[in-house]
Amino acid sequence: MKKLINSPETVVGDALLGMAAAHPELIQVHFDPDYITRAGAPVRGKVGLLSGGGSGHEPMHGGFVGYGMLDAACPGAVFTSPVPDQMLAATKAIDGGAGVLHIVKNYTGDVMNFEMAAELAQMEGIEVASVITNDDVAVKDSLYTAGRRGVGVTVLLEKICGGAAEAGLPLAEVTRIAQNVNAQGRSMGMALTSCAVPAAGKPTFEIGDDEMEIGIGIHGEPGRQRMKLQSAREITEMLASAILDDLPFNRGDQVLAFVNGMGGTPLIELYVVYNDLVKLCGDRGVTISRNLIGNYITSLEMAGCSITLLKLDDELTRFWDAPVHTPALRWGR
Amino acid sequence: MKKLINSPETVVGDALLGMAAAHPELIQVHFDPDYITRAGAPVRGKVGLLSGGGSGHEPMHGGFVGYGMLDAACPGAVFTSPVPDQMLAATKAIDGGAGVLHIVKNYTGDVMNFEMAAELAQMEGIEVASVITNDDVAVKDSLYTAGRRGVGVTVLLEKICGGAAEAGLPLAEVTRIAQNVNAQGRSMGMALTSCAVPAAGKPTFEIGDDEMEIGIGIHGEPGRQRMKLQSAREITEMLASAILDDLPFNRGDQVLAFVNGMGGTPLIELYVVYNDLVKLCGDRGVTISRNLIGNYITSLEMAGCSITLLKLDDELTRFWDAPVHTPALRWGR
Repeated sequence: MKKLINSPETVVGDALLGMAAAHPELIQVHFDPDYITRAGAPVRGKVGLLSGGGSGHEPMHGGFVGYGMLDAACPGAVFTSPVPDQMLAATKAIDGGAGVLHIVKNYTGDVMNFEMAAELAQMEGIEVASVITNDDVAVKDSLYTAGRRGVGVTVLLEKICGGAAEAGLPLAEVTRIAQNVNAQGRSMGMALTSCAVPAAGKPTFEIGDDEMEIGIGIHGEPGRQRMKLQSAREITEMLASAILDDLPFNRGDQVLAFVNGMGGTPLIELYVVYNDLVKLCGDRGVTISRNLIGNYITSLEMAGCSITLLKLDDELTRFWDAPVHTPALRWGR
Repeated sequence: MKKLINSPETVVGDALLGMAAAHPELIQVHFDPDYITRAGAPVRGKVGLLSGGGSGHEPMHGGFVGYGMLDAACPGAVFTSPVPDQMLAATKAIDGGAGVLHIVKNYTGDVMNFEMAAELAQMEGIEVASVITNDDVAVKDSLYTAGRRGVGVTVLLEKICGGAAEAGLPLAEVTRIAQNVNAQGRSMGMALTSCAVPAAGKPTFEIGDDEMEIGIGIHGEPGRQRMKLQSAREITEMLASAILDDLPFNRGDQVLAFVNGMGGTPLIELYVVYNDLVKLCGDRGVTISRNLIGNYITSLEMAGCSITLLKLDDELTRFWDAPVHTPALRWGR
């Protein structure tokens, strides 16, 4: 598969250099070990927020480093967990004396490596808490996971906890809010095409010209069902029904609706999906009071989308609305 | 080709409904004729900015309607010019007594229809000025154009003139700035894959698994050269050299560098291109003092990118930096 890269070996490093050159007022990129910190880190007295994972999901996580969101992100190779050395160095770089929250998507490698990094950081006297996101309702266990996968809720959690940390809340409170976001959020995705990992050079999976994969993972790992392509309305109903039934979301709930592109789907199609989602939620008496539409947690060039619904309360809404200034998400300043 | 739509006939309308539902605080969507206005339009005493063109280039132009950018946008069918009726209705809806600037990309249909709309609006007593963007250095004439095509500069022009109009500048001044942006900006694009118009249901052009098209247009129309795939560095050099030599940009120039995704290219690759672009500009003594990286003027799901360089002066920089709040571009508020 064709890519705009110089080589599979250098793609992550080249992109990190590009980010460093593009956003020096927001972030600083460190190499060997590789991690991205907020410019001016650590912020004295503020809880530090660290996330990380395999590359190939851009803008997540590096694009979310900055004011009001993450203090640091650790990029692994494409679709490969970063290593504990990166996480330890990043944790130390962002500890402003109020402790550090690790935000970990539920994939076996990520969980194991973040656990090790947390232990090492604690041995050096840094207070570390962790939250594991597992919002994907598609499958119980998966190719890379014991239990549900962590997907779209991670983006919302990073924004909301970033707002809480910026407001000066202590580690225990930011952790409580993180757990609440994960508990109140659910996601499911689908794909029309495969992605291709640069080093592999071929599509991760084969899919027919008239087929789609429902419940896909963000690494192209299998989902619930391979089936014939259907309309946006039918696809949206499959995803939204599974999500709405799972929490469950109830009549009268206010939600944040996040329609996410997998990387290769044009924005016009995401708005078609959003339009169908508004109707489906309305039919269930669920009100969308906030929304986010675009490519935020991607799978390289995969065509498809995911839907995340997060049940809002006053606290989550307030920290979602709070100012943020990162390469990929910005408002209020 | 597979798409997340309900039907080729309803894709534009469904997406407009999705936009209306997602951004009621920013925009209002009108149907029959179809156009999008800024919420609260017209703004009394402010120059109104109108653009438009075929759909399939999202977020351009509808995603740029709001505070500090466009007052209205007219979406045509996919890759098809909107009609004068839409443009006339939009012009009337946003005229706050200070006149309206039409921002037109140089495609034969758009130019003809905007000319007719301007005449009709003037007959109704509205002062209308027009600017035609033609920044694409790839080809002299094209499938849809006499003269150069209007591409990436259009996005920058809409932002900068939006800032100027918001600052209260009169129509003649906003028009002068628009002409200056077009005069100081140059672009060129390339594609790895084709797009597919929904109503056609098949790729617009055929391209080999090891080929790329240099100088592609935003409708998949042919460019300068079909050639074997090369590295991001070589591709960036081909695009940037053609751009830098054309104006020409000179040692000591400050520029805004815009690396744009065509819709199907992941963000990680755009940052690889940006990294190579920084080096190339540096070698020529050209300093990138502002940048924009992402999918802003797209060709449905086409994989590829375009580069736009705009020579900055104090005035252009000031209006680029001014606050903007639209569905797709936001800062400063």
